[in-house]
Amino acid sequence: MSLQISDLSDAVLHTHYAVRGPIVARAQELEDQGREIIYCNIGNPQALGQAPLRYVRDVLAACEQPELLKRSDHAFQDDVREKTHYILEQSKYGLGAYSESKGLRFVRAAISEFIAARDSHDGVDQVSNPEHIYLTDGASKGVQAALRLLIASANDGILIPIPQYPLYSATITLYGGRQVGYYLDEESGWNLDEELLEDAMHGAIKEGIRARAIVVINPGNPTGSVLSEDNMRMVIRFAKRHNLAILADEVYQKNIYRPGITFISFAHLMSKLHEREVSLFSFHSTSKGFFGECGQRGGYMEARNLPEEVIAQITKLQSVALCANVPGQVLTYLMVSPPVAGEPSYPLFAEEQKAILAELAKRAKMIEEGLNRIPGIRCQPIDGAMYAFPSISLPSGRTDEEYCMALLEEEGVCLVPGSGFGQKPGTAHFRTTILPPTDQLERVIGAIAAFHLQWR
Amino acid sequence: MSLQISDLSDAVLHTHYAVRGPIVARAQELEDQGREIIYCNIGNPQALGQAPLRYVRDVLAACEQPELLKRSDHAFQDDVREKTHYILEQSKYGLGAYSESKGLRFVRAAISEFIAARDSHDGVDQVSNPEHIYLTDGASKGVQAALRLLIASANDGILIPIPQYPLYSATITLYGGRQVGYYLDEESGWNLDEELLEDAMHGAIKEGIRARAIVVINPGNPTGSVLSEDNMRMVIRFAKRHNLAILADEVYQKNIYRPGITFISFAHLMSKLHEREVSLFSFHSTSKGFFGECGQRGGYMEARNLPEEVIAQITKLQSVALCANVPGQVLTYLMVSPPVAGEPSYPLFAEEQKAILAELAKRAKMIEEGLNRIPGIRCQPIDGAMYAFPSISLPSGRTDEEYCMALLEEEGVCLVPGSGFGQKPGTAHFRTTILPPTDQLERVIGAIAAFHLQWR
Repeated sequence: MSLQISDLSDAVLHTHYAVRGPIVARAQELEDQGREIIYCNIGNPQALGQAPLRYVRDVLAACEQPELLKRSDHAFQDDVREKTHYILEQSKYGLGAYSESKGLRFVRAAISEFIAARDSHDGVDQVSNPEHIYLTDGASKGVQAALRLLIASANDGILIPIPQYPLYSATITLYGGRQVGYYLDEESGWNLDEELLEDAMHGAIKEGIRARAIVVINPGNPTGSVLSEDNMRMVIRFAKRHNLAILADEVYQKNIYRPGITFISFAHLMSKLHEREVSLFSFHSTSKGFFGECGQRGGYMEARNLPEEVIAQITKLQSVALCANVPGQVLTYLMVSPPVAGEPSYPLFAEEQKAILAELAKRAKMIEEGLNRIPGIRCQPIDGAMYAFPSISLPSGRTDEEYCMALLEEEGVCLVPGSGFGQKPGTAHFRTTILPPTDQLERVIGAIAAFHLQWR
Repeated sequence: MSLQISDLSDAVLHTHYAVRGPIVARAQELEDQGREIIYCNIGNPQALGQAPLRYVRDVLAACEQPELLKRSDHAFQDDVREKTHYILEQSKYGLGAYSESKGLRFVRAAISEFIAARDSHDGVDQVSNPEHIYLTDGASKGVQAALRLLIASANDGILIPIPQYPLYSATITLYGGRQVGYYLDEESGWNLDEELLEDAMHGAIKEGIRARAIVVINPGNPTGSVLSEDNMRMVIRFAKRHNLAILADEVYQKNIYRPGITFISFAHLMSKLHEREVSLFSFHSTSKGFFGECGQRGGYMEARNLPEEVIAQITKLQSVALCANVPGQVLTYLMVSPPVAGEPSYPLFAEEQKAILAELAKRAKMIEEGLNRIPGIRCQPIDGAMYAFPSISLPSGRTDEEYCMALLEEEGVCLVPGSGFGQKPGTAHFRTTILPPTDQLERVIGAIAAFHLQWR
């Protein structure tokens, strides 16, 4: 045949994405055979029972079929009708036409206002330029767009946390760049550590790698940590010292569970520090937070501290595949401009939001405490995001891949081994989502406990 | 700043996508200043007045908000209700969860059946494997997935038609491969010509390029041609002779306007010829045909004659960005399994389909004849797709970019210059869509005629 495996590039062959790797494939096989599987491998809330928000789906439905507003008098709240009319008017052609390459203008304007409102505190009067915002098919595609720019040659390196979300390692490999891993400090709750960052940087220089950017995932995936302002200041200083861009993966910004902990965006802190030299790409998504709309692939990237000529290059690259899906763009609009107090949809929306986030906080606590009760498993505080990444003690000679595969076979629980995210040599971990409903989560914890104590 | 234009790769800087280039940017500027612009630059039917199909949007709306089926008794036809229930049941979690990386299984199964039914004629009993089908965010992302596999080194070349749709040239440049242009034969109505193909191949070999695949766009973009079986047989022989894969861009397969002309898929013809050596990637989309749902980014890629280990690599790469948008997947499902005679939605659906395709056929004829009446402009038959690509005579020393920019400034008509698609040296062309409503199309033709006769 004209295309053989031997024809493929090393970049393709070496790309590895653990979240959907062989363990998940085996889980699907078992499920096809009739086994009941609890999927804890992926942050996919609606696959684990989270219901979509009524307001959001009402507006999306009405945008798909505006005639419904006429056909059924009582099916929609007044503010749903108004929002739909506004979206259709602003988008000009509804959901069925290509938008501008960057995304619909009114959506970018609304994102801009959202960023300004989110970040204007603590002495900062935030501004955001809608022309530097790109709507993307989920945050993943935004991350890939930024990496595409930053990896210009085979010596270009990207600093990624260890552990990291494997979108980064996979894309860097695929785009022919070099991964420069920096360890997160597990004992401090997975903070970034200046010395460990410098170590990574020195290692890169020694190998002839030109480091181009540092990836920071905050709140952390897979770690569940939420960075403090001090820790982030250190990262900005570090990036500036080494002339790195920052890729700020902030898709879990609404997933904060511990009282007293707050999310600070890199855009906010850079504005506060009057930092105009460090280029910043930040990413947000409709897949996480309390929307959990993974399937609809909404998201955006905001770029800061970039020359206009680089912005023009991003726009050009985005134009090649025309535009992000327009329903996802509208969903992103709804995320950044939700109903407000006084509107008829507000009470239910606020109630749904509160219930979902309270439930996630409860599950985070439940799994953190549940795992920490198992001898040989140690879980750092889960302050945010949707995951636990506990360290596990293994029988000598065994790997966390074997552990997760055996757990799947024996207990029907699908986790991802720590090796898929990266970890310090000599340590072992797994990642589990905190998403299963509490009764399932109890079974997951029970299954892990039973399995962990007897596995050899 | 940490990212400067000088940091970008040549691949990024040299990527060029004319359909949304400087002329379109200028058109948007003029429009912002209050000028009325007729956009003929892009195949975006719903931006030019084509209404979405009622059935399609009803089902999508009900999938977004299934509660509507309960809330409004009379708003939906019975078959819309049934289809929605089926989709929700088959997808398991509705539109809000990530699907499998390849796309929802029942959608892939339906695409498979669609291909089998479409291609089982003329002695062929077509089969299609759902595991070799990938749902993509529009066909563009499918094409990029295939090119990603095929371009393994800087010497790898892809044969693309001249003229071509610039997604191909842009992506090949971006992925660091080599374009090998082969001329289409304008005088024969833009057929592929064996001698011209061999010329291109010899040129590639001389330059040390390892040709990996040939792109065929059928029906043709920008040419409007529809390939005959003989012409396609020649292409398959050529691909086999040189061990090339075929990329068959068949997104306009439903856009056939001339009586007696039929679309033949490469999958059909390869089955008919019992050809099992030539690897084939074929692409389809919800953006064209009579759906015209560009904004929703639905589409698929079917792969044939590939080793299973290569299929596994495609699946792995698709998994990195998780999945195509699920509403777009559902839309693709509706495209391949439309209402059938006897169902309540069928009569209107059939009527809308017929009206849209009849209207497009009328416009194709109108623009072909209108352009051919202008001295100095010559347009080949528009048998299919959505475009005319006439050759134009220019005053000496002038380019088609200048021509199109001047036409935009003077007449408010936005075309794309032939140079954006590629053309024989010494010739000049433009591409226009056939999409504007007839009254606008008359103005477009009138404007071009007036402009062409006086421009110096």
